[in-house]
Amino acid sequence: MPAAGSYSLTIRAEIPAKVGVFGRLMAAVSEAGGEVGGVDLVRSTSDAVTRDITVFAKDDAHGDAIRAAIEAIDGVRVLSVNDRVFLRHLGGTVGMRSRVALETRDDLSMAYTPGVARVCMEIHHHPEAVWDYTIKGNSVMVVTDGSSVVGQGDLGPLAALPVAEAKCMFLREFAAIDGFPLPVTVRDPGQITTVVSRISSVFAGVHLSDIAAPRCFEILERLGAAVDIPVFQDDQEGTAAAVLAGVINGLRLAGKRLEESTVVVAGLGPGGMATVRLLAAAGTGQVIACDSRGAVHRGRRGMDERLARIAEQTNPEGRTGGARELIAGADVFVGLSVPDLLSPEDVRRMAKDPVVFALALPNPEISAAAASGVAAVYGSGRPDAPNQINSGLAYPGIWRGAIDVRATRINDAMVMAAARAIASVVPPEALTPESVVPSIFDRALAPAVAKAVREAAWATGVARVTSAVA
Amino acid sequence: MPAAGSYSLTIRAEIPAKVGVFGRLMAAVSEAGGEVGGVDLVRSTSDAVTRDITVFAKDDAHGDAIRAAIEAIDGVRVLSVNDRVFLRHLGGTVGMRSRVALETRDDLSMAYTPGVARVCMEIHHHPEAVWDYTIKGNSVMVVTDGSSVVGQGDLGPLAALPVAEAKCMFLREFAAIDGFPLPVTVRDPGQITTVVSRISSVFAGVHLSDIAAPRCFEILERLGAAVDIPVFQDDQEGTAAAVLAGVINGLRLAGKRLEESTVVVAGLGPGGMATVRLLAAAGTGQVIACDSRGAVHRGRRGMDERLARIAEQTNPEGRTGGARELIAGADVFVGLSVPDLLSPEDVRRMAKDPVVFALALPNPEISAAAASGVAAVYGSGRPDAPNQINSGLAYPGIWRGAIDVRATRINDAMVMAAARAIASVVPPEALTPESVVPSIFDRALAPAVAKAVREAAWATGVARVTSAVA
Repeated sequence: MPAAGSYSLTIRAEIPAKVGVFGRLMAAVSEAGGEVGGVDLVRSTSDAVTRDITVFAKDDAHGDAIRAAIEAIDGVRVLSVNDRVFLRHLGGTVGMRSRVALETRDDLSMAYTPGVARVCMEIHHHPEAVWDYTIKGNSVMVVTDGSSVVGQGDLGPLAALPVAEAKCMFLREFAAIDGFPLPVTVRDPGQITTVVSRISSVFAGVHLSDIAAPRCFEILERLGAAVDIPVFQDDQEGTAAAVLAGVINGLRLAGKRLEESTVVVAGLGPGGMATVRLLAAAGTGQVIACDSRGAVHRGRRGMDERLARIAEQTNPEGRTGGARELIAGADVFVGLSVPDLLSPEDVRRMAKDPVVFALALPNPEISAAAASGVAAVYGSGRPDAPNQINSGLAYPGIWRGAIDVRATRINDAMVMAAARAIASVVPPEALTPESVVPSIFDRALAPAVAKAVREAAWATGVARVTSAVA
Repeated sequence: MPAAGSYSLTIRAEIPAKVGVFGRLMAAVSEAGGEVGGVDLVRSTSDAVTRDITVFAKDDAHGDAIRAAIEAIDGVRVLSVNDRVFLRHLGGTVGMRSRVALETRDDLSMAYTPGVARVCMEIHHHPEAVWDYTIKGNSVMVVTDGSSVVGQGDLGPLAALPVAEAKCMFLREFAAIDGFPLPVTVRDPGQITTVVSRISSVFAGVHLSDIAAPRCFEILERLGAAVDIPVFQDDQEGTAAAVLAGVINGLRLAGKRLEESTVVVAGLGPGGMATVRLLAAAGTGQVIACDSRGAVHRGRRGMDERLARIAEQTNPEGRTGGARELIAGADVFVGLSVPDLLSPEDVRRMAKDPVVFALALPNPEISAAAASGVAAVYGSGRPDAPNQINSGLAYPGIWRGAIDVRATRINDAMVMAAARAIASVVPPEALTPESVVPSIFDRALAPAVAKAVREAAWATGVARVTSAVA
């Protein structure tokens, strides 16, 4: 079955008002491998009925084939074909709104001149007032250079914009945050730091998105040092928090303790590196990181500073080899690497009740079907299967919490608190192999994460205010 | 009378339920020089009535005096005092909104992964698709360095933010445009050009705001050359368009032709320079520009390149002297300079039926009271008197028109078309000395301006598309 929604068409067809034609059309779609998602009546005359038929398909070619199958039916005329994904993105997924009424001259005098001058003077004399009287108190810049766009590689900043917008939409929908998407047309970490820091004053935080490793690590560090607001990359810490939440609940189901478990992380891009770091910081028994060259261990040659640091913090037994060897005996496998890395046989060699998070997109390290019956818990990055492990579980709540206390940074303690909060949103009685993480639509999720993050920010001294502003 | 709304308080007071006390309170406000804008009932018991009393005042000290006068009344207790302007700006005047529903997994698959990847690929392969499928097709960046904030001088970028936000609110309310406020923390024109151009790809235009002359001229030129979208400063061309509209209708009332009229412009900041240029380009009989050093004329010493260009285009008789001398015999005076420059006597020396636009803020070159009876038409920049000549009349419609055709720039022809459209929104039968420009709340204004601007863009070859997109 094709992934619902990832590719779907709305086909408007005029169908002769004769018995059996509509049935033949439905059969034709089905025979062409399409799945009918819905049928709407547009209009009806004595001769013909016009209907909108929503069809899920695999890709463009498949969509064309389904259309052709419909057109081949005697008397049926296709009036239009709309790609629902593109319709959804028409005009973008976010926009601005006015927060005050502007109906009368009195409104104008207060919101604009001459009244606004007094607000300007207040901020001039007391700069911290900018948090209270402007959008700064609730806004996040979503920055991307488009160097690594949702598993599609380097598409450039413009092509990354729909993802940056979608993240702003997420922030708005789930955490009532005002995120604005900003693709930058430079690539050098120093230049990105300069550009972003010079426009950062209107924001409460900087959210990095779709920036490739290893540059993203340097940008996170340099920019974090250059500005007085948090800098956060959801592909890094956001992913790590979501994974840790899944690991916590997956191990809970298996009756194992994190401190005594072995977790293998395959793939050391932004998500993999941050996940390894967070798992180690959270006290995981053994973390073994590996990339395309195999396990990271102290003796490995040619490691950069970041890998050398990972080698210090992980793999105490100095194991070597590739992911398929390393997972023998492991309790958890986390893949942030390449499709079809693992076979069911590989998973069978893991410890009892293995937890497998195969997060490569769009195609995971092992499919849900292949893992079925061998993994005790299985999750992927896809929305069309249970246990979608996605940074979207974490970052709306993390930002809400950070902004509520006007944090100066988002530190490990806050990310870890977020992970525990995500895990805790699934109550013990609801915890099953198909629900180790909550639904991204769970409206209790972001508030729970925000609360934990606020408390961690207060505890670690990175909050500007001692009570939540929101 | 204080300017309505520019400074007003809502005073919540508990008033004894005795005959005459409320009347005494109203009298006390009035005696203290305050004006009651409204009274709301909050709650009522047998002993006392709690009311919200909205009071217009001159400034902070005046507000305090009014509060004291209320508290002095026996038995009255002031519970709270809220400054209505600051309340209005709490949390800022603009925010983000989500443009698509995000309720189901299907929504998520289309707006976000995996569906969004197809939109990204489409933009990667066809970059012009970014106009259709992202916020770029409707967004404007409102940039300021805070070097000249609504008549308050150099307050810095943060303090300029409430004004930049208010302009975004304007764009949203009157032209359905998504404007985002971006203060920049650099001052050098080259650096501003670099920062802005590197983040410009997500915008359909760059709106400069509250940047001091002469730097603003250089920034407008350099940035305009660096990006492929319009760069526009409302304090420059926006003001000029609003002034020209007022001049057109003011002269129409006097039965004079623009081509035979003399217009004196005092003050050569951003608005003055642009107004002089636009008046000359529109074919005004004589334009005479002057600054604090007097008239600009060919023989004047120490002029920079811009003033020299003005000297070439204006003042054909080479007149010298200050504004007060120059306006003798002039048909129109436009002040964008300093308070109280003119006396009623000065206006009396103008030609018959003189038009006076005294636009200095917050205090004009001559007050409405002083000009009354001597000027045939009087306008100011203030919202509390008729004929508010403000760039806000022009820029929402100018941007709407420019964006509708995906313009590459906003040229003189477009600004002039905007001015004529603003003037035309006041129908001949409604044209009076108190209504030479339409109300900023006239919902017909922005669409009329937009239409004229689209046509001018098509006529001058700066439109990317040949039919309006919106």
